[in-house]
Amino acid sequence: MIEFKILKKSDKSNARLGVLKTPHGEVETPCFVPVATQATVKTLSSDEIISAGSQMLIANTFHLHLKPGEKLLKDHGGINKFANIKIPIMTDSGGFQVFSLGFGRDHGVSKVEKIKPEEFIKKGSQPKLLKITEEGVEFTSYVDGSKIFMGPKESIKIQEKIGADIIFAFDECTAPTATKEYTAESLKKTHRWADICLGVKKSNQALYGIVQGGKYKDLRVESAKFIASRPFDGFGIGGEFGGDKKQMVKMIKWVTEELSENKPRHLLGIGYLEDMEKIIKSGIDTFDCTVPTHYARHGNAFTSKGKIDLTKTKYLKGKASKESLDPECSCFVCREHTKGYLSHLVRAHEITGLRLLSFHNVHYFNKYVANIREKIKKGLI
Amino acid sequence: MIEFKILKKSDKSNARLGVLKTPHGEVETPCFVPVATQATVKTLSSDEIISAGSQMLIANTFHLHLKPGEKLLKDHGGINKFANIKIPIMTDSGGFQVFSLGFGRDHGVSKVEKIKPEEFIKKGSQPKLLKITEEGVEFTSYVDGSKIFMGPKESIKIQEKIGADIIFAFDECTAPTATKEYTAESLKKTHRWADICLGVKKSNQALYGIVQGGKYKDLRVESAKFIASRPFDGFGIGGEFGGDKKQMVKMIKWVTEELSENKPRHLLGIGYLEDMEKIIKSGIDTFDCTVPTHYARHGNAFTSKGKIDLTKTKYLKGKASKESLDPECSCFVCREHTKGYLSHLVRAHEITGLRLLSFHNVHYFNKYVANIREKIKKGLI
Repeated sequence: MIEFKILKKSDKSNARLGVLKTPHGEVETPCFVPVATQATVKTLSSDEIISAGSQMLIANTFHLHLKPGEKLLKDHGGINKFANIKIPIMTDSGGFQVFSLGFGRDHGVSKVEKIKPEEFIKKGSQPKLLKITEEGVEFTSYVDGSKIFMGPKESIKIQEKIGADIIFAFDECTAPTATKEYTAESLKKTHRWADICLGVKKSNQALYGIVQGGKYKDLRVESAKFIASRPFDGFGIGGEFGGDKKQMVKMIKWVTEELSENKPRHLLGIGYLEDMEKIIKSGIDTFDCTVPTHYARHGNAFTSKGKIDLTKTKYLKGKASKESLDPECSCFVCREHTKGYLSHLVRAHEITGLRLLSFHNVHYFNKYVANIREKIKKGLI
Repeated sequence: MIEFKILKKSDKSNARLGVLKTPHGEVETPCFVPVATQATVKTLSSDEIISAGSQMLIANTFHLHLKPGEKLLKDHGGINKFANIKIPIMTDSGGFQVFSLGFGRDHGVSKVEKIKPEEFIKKGSQPKLLKITEEGVEFTSYVDGSKIFMGPKESIKIQEKIGADIIFAFDECTAPTATKEYTAESLKKTHRWADICLGVKKSNQALYGIVQGGKYKDLRVESAKFIASRPFDGFGIGGEFGGDKKQMVKMIKWVTEELSENKPRHLLGIGYLEDMEKIIKSGIDTFDCTVPTHYARHGNAFTSKGKIDLTKTKYLKGKASKESLDPECSCFVCREHTKGYLSHLVRAHEITGLRLLSFHNVHYFNKYVANIREKIKKGLI
């Protein structure tokens, strides 16, 4: 179980400073949560996850169910022991994959596969790679092509076996292109599923309910009220709002106004640097995003002077090549290496380069949020 | 410059125990030399290279010339500073690439590209991707398709800029399929090139001459005598003998009998575990090989119970999944992780898995040779 304590509320915004106590240690909030999709933060070792300043991770129920299967994780005593990760872990519910493999794909906004909206219209409104019913979703496994069924009951059972400190209710994450009619119907199902999740959970893991409702204010408010009325240990806020930042901040405010103040709030899958302060000022306590590791694997580093693309040749000559990645950063990559060497590694497709940049970026994001915590402490935001 | 001191000679074999003093520290010999082709041991950080027990590395002149170019390395104060590697480094001369891009390709034994021997015969004896002349070799760059010329003068100038502690003379490494006639002609050129290398070197780097001669005893003996008669600081022994282990040991003996005893001997590109003791007993002091990192990147780990293929599903269940990779190994990977987790990472194509296995394998190889040093010390081999 978890315990959440608010240490300070900002008088300038809705930002809160808190401590989230979990079986695997305390998390200072607001907190950036690096993504450990397959029980590892891509390229990092267990020790580095912590030395990069991470306090909590989020792993992926859908992916771990397919590979290596939750049975193995349970057999090893849960995900923390399995991966030898000593900080708290959350697991998402698999709901995002409903979005990403289903309507997301058909609407051209999936991360997995895209078809053009025109084609979608021609083919009708039934998603192609999965079938959503009242009981849950039938997927086609990308591992072996087998049919896999996941609904609220299945998701909770899988998450209980994975054994993270915090688990999420199974939801449907609607596409940004979804109509109000579709979103409203979907929301009813997400709420029914939320109650089923509460009913079937037997473990003493903390369970967060997920607020959906797309871009529609009345649906978001309705969803927040519903989820807040249930005995969840915390709240997740789902949905795709990356394309419209103003909309995202507005949506968070509609929702957080309805949520019980004393429970932690997690924003799912949003965490660009430029959004962080806004998110936190809107009353979010934790949020996850793959940005630092994803950009690192494409040769990009985040620095106090902006994002640097190390695949460019300009870092291979003159003064720039001898500079550290970020003179203001204290991480071992910035202390020990130059832009020239890192650029060489990235351009030569050396894995060493990807891991050094991943470490720096995760460290940078964690430090960035630590600074925001300091600002709240000092009453600056 | 370097200084080589023999501490003990075995009375059971030709094995020697020694210390090689270099500007970047002392190397206990016999010593396994991990490969740092592009100024990094693939997947490892600079710190890990050392904590895995490595004492010396070998980098690749040909690859560093193409990417990022020796100018950048010189500009950074040499390869050690460029890559922040605190142990001695060797650079090979680029000669092996003559083999691998040229006749190696045409004879179907290249690491880069293969054509069938029949096609080679039809197409005549001129290698297709390069042109070997008295002055050197014209390559086609795989980076940008430009023509690049490298001969003994160019190789030494490049290696001086790269700035490793130990550099090698430019040679032609003949294919295992080369005729005696071709090998003899090639050897004369390799010897002329050796003298040119001695003549043009201006730095105080140590320069090793390379003994060639293929599988022909008289040519190997001739080459060893020639190279031993020149003022090299040490000897490299080149050639492809991986296919026939007995032949390799015989060849090393032909050669080492002719070499001055008080100079270090490096066997180029040979280092399978099962060969190590034989190599060392034949009088080799240092040897390099990509085996530990290459196999790691294909999911294989070397252990005291043999090579393990972690891509197999059998490590994902039962007792095997909970065992450490090698209960006899003291490296952090074996202390902190199970076969089950490592197998999951490898099967899920996680870079973290490749780096953990690379670390373990390099540690294992270094430890393996450290044990052989102990055996020599104790008079056991």
